[in-house]
Amino acid sequence: MDPDEQAIRLLIATWLQATAADDLERVLDLMADDVVFLSAGRPPMVGKDAFAAAARARQGHTRVDSRADIREMRIVGGWAYCWNQLTVTLTPVGGGTPTQLGGPALSILMKKPDGQWVIARDANMIAPVTPSGG
Amino acid sequence: MDPDEQAIRLLIATWLQATAADDLERVLDLMADDVVFLSAGRPPMVGKDAFAAAARARQGHTRVDSRADIREMRIVGGWAYCWNQLTVTLTPVGGGTPTQLGGPALSILMKKPDGQWVIARDANMIAPVTPSGG
Repeated sequence: MDPDEQAIRLLIATWLQATAADDLERVLDLMADDVVFLSAGRPPMVGKDAFAAAARARQGHTRVDSRADIREMRIVGGWAYCWNQLTVTLTPVGGGTPTQLGGPALSILMKKPDGQWVIARDANMIAPVTPSGG
Repeated sequence: MDPDEQAIRLLIATWLQATAADDLERVLDLMADDVVFLSAGRPPMVGKDAFAAAARARQGHTRVDSRADIREMRIVGGWAYCWNQLTVTLTPVGGGTPTQLGGPALSILMKKPDGQWVIARDANMIAPVTPSGG
């Protein structure tokens, strides 16, 4: 496998593991400083600091377990895009019914001058999974 | 302005105009044959034919007026990504209250061998605009 593709697959796996483990420092190391997170119904979240603040507000309240099915990855020079189908389970730490979410994500990745791949832009389209599909 | 950036800006403007005018042939000419449209709560829509079928089902029922505020565009060789903030008004052709939608879109574009830019992947995160923002 192409070493860049291998690095990006490892990045995605690390992201999901570190998120489930609430290891924020490790997650922050996987994104560009000027990262942009896009989703429906919310203003764009711009910058690593904004992500960190939102993640800290969630910590200790909700556990996030995710699975990513990589549908496509294309690498062009020091840039790449990756389309994942995500399955996410949000579990209240204090007890309660878990919420199931699912849907696609389209991420733009960049290779830093030191050779490390990071997430630069992320379009998240997960939504609650209803019994009728979705 | 860089001619590729100029071509992509023209593509976006043409897309919005042709969509409002229900000029499906013109819209289809602006996308790759293997285009993928991603959004929340719906399965990925893969291929120009799937888009055409969905657009034909909508034609004559709903008018789609859109505005795109281009927030970022990055061109790397024959590929590009573009982040837009969209404002969309859906108006029932037979009369009725228009629906307002808004939100980001992240598109991947590719330059065909003949030099034409087309949309290859599209992540659409528009959602109904509520009075409290959104």
